[in-house]
Amino acid sequence: MTSQFHLTFNTHGRGSVEITADIAALVQNAAVDTGIAHIFIRHTSCGLAITENADTSVRDDLETLLQRWAPDGDPAYRHDMEGNDDMAAHGRSLLTGTSLSIPFGGGQLLLGTWQGIYLFEHRTHGHRREVVVTLMG
Amino acid sequence: MTSQFHLTFNTHGRGSVEITADIAALVQNAAVDTGIAHIFIRHTSCGLAITENADTSVRDDLETLLQRWAPDGDPAYRHDMEGNDDMAAHGRSLLTGTSLSIPFGGGQLLLGTWQGIYLFEHRTHGHRREVVVTLMG
Amino acid sequence: MTSQFHLTFNTHGRGSVEITADIAALVQNAAVDTGIAHIFIRHTSCGLAITENADTSVRDDLETLLQRWAPDGDPAYRHDMEGNDDMAAHGRSLLTGTSLSIPFGGGQLLLGTWQGIYLFEHRTHGHRREVVVTLMG
Repeated sequence: MTSQFHLTFNTHGRGSVEITADIAALVQNAAVDTGIAHIFIRHTSCGLAITENADTSVRDDLETLLQRWAPDGDPAYRHDMEGNDDMAAHGRSLLTGTSLSIPFGGGQLLLGTWQGIYLFEHRTHGHRREVVVTLMG
Repeated sequence: MTSQFHLTFNTHGRGSVEITADIAALVQNAAVDTGIAHIFIRHTSCGLAITENADTSVRDDLETLLQRWAPDGDPAYRHDMEGNDDMAAHGRSLLTGTSLSIPFGGGQLLLGTWQGIYLFEHRTHGHRREVVVTLMG
Repeated sequence: MTSQFHLTFNTHGRGSVEITADIAALVQNAAVDTGIAHIFIRHTSCGLAITENADTSVRDDLETLLQRWAPDGDPAYRHDMEGNDDMAAHGRSLLTGTSLSIPFGGGQLLLGTWQGIYLFEHRTHGHRREVVVTLMG
């Protein structure tokens, strides 16, 4: 049994948006109670990641690391059509990836206690981001 | 056909634990012979990765790179509740990710000759780590 | 319904090979029209990634970043059996990963407009690379 949903999220510039509740709601209403929830983002300048959901400074610090791994406006970049943050966003996207998959059982996502699902905006300005969720089981 | 298993692994501090045989055994006993084995780790301070299974110095060198990518006790971190290795572990987790998925066919994992499946402990002390394996096909 | 395909691609040294059309063709001929296309590479010195498909300088710049993240011939490496690029390739592989999964619906991959699927060769010389594609839905 496979079901598929198209969601959109508005971001407000660099940083992360928690989407755990949106995915959990789809899983709770699914026709099957055991399987995989697959989440895909249809862009190359933002990403998806699971990280700690308790202390928000974890995500601030991940932002610090991402800035270091793929700096804005690095003189080595050739691609800068859309500004200083353009290539940096693609570099960050390579590291965070475009999909997540999370098991569910008993109609619930099997996340650990401290795990949250986040959409990471890698551009400095906000965007409307499209996500495809596929539930299989 | 979907089946799901809960496994636990004890780690002994930084470094990798090979779990290839544990996953292969589940696949060999599965009701279907073609599909995907999905492995998920329910934590944000350790990770899963496929890497070379022959020369152990590869994993030592990956540890060297991980230490460089997300250094312990970096002065830029704000999150350090659980010590010097706390935020570094979350940074490493962003890079290694929380899940792997591997095709199987003919009742066997379709890993390449030199691929092994590893749980990477990113904290300096050992932990009991929970893994959910979902077989779909 | 699960179907599985074995593909091979020849690389010509460092850089990326677009494989979007190969995967799209399998999806278009699949028995189901909604599900997940899973792509797995059976090696630890190359990787798979989704990135921008318009301006080729994006992939040149990703190559620049990969070279910085896991430099060739780093004096800290212990593993160098196959030369200067050997351990660097394993380090890059940890970052790019060994699999991708992409939703399909209506018999089409649900990639965003600017997303392409790429095989990244991390060794300096070309290789014959084996890929397993599993379609589930």
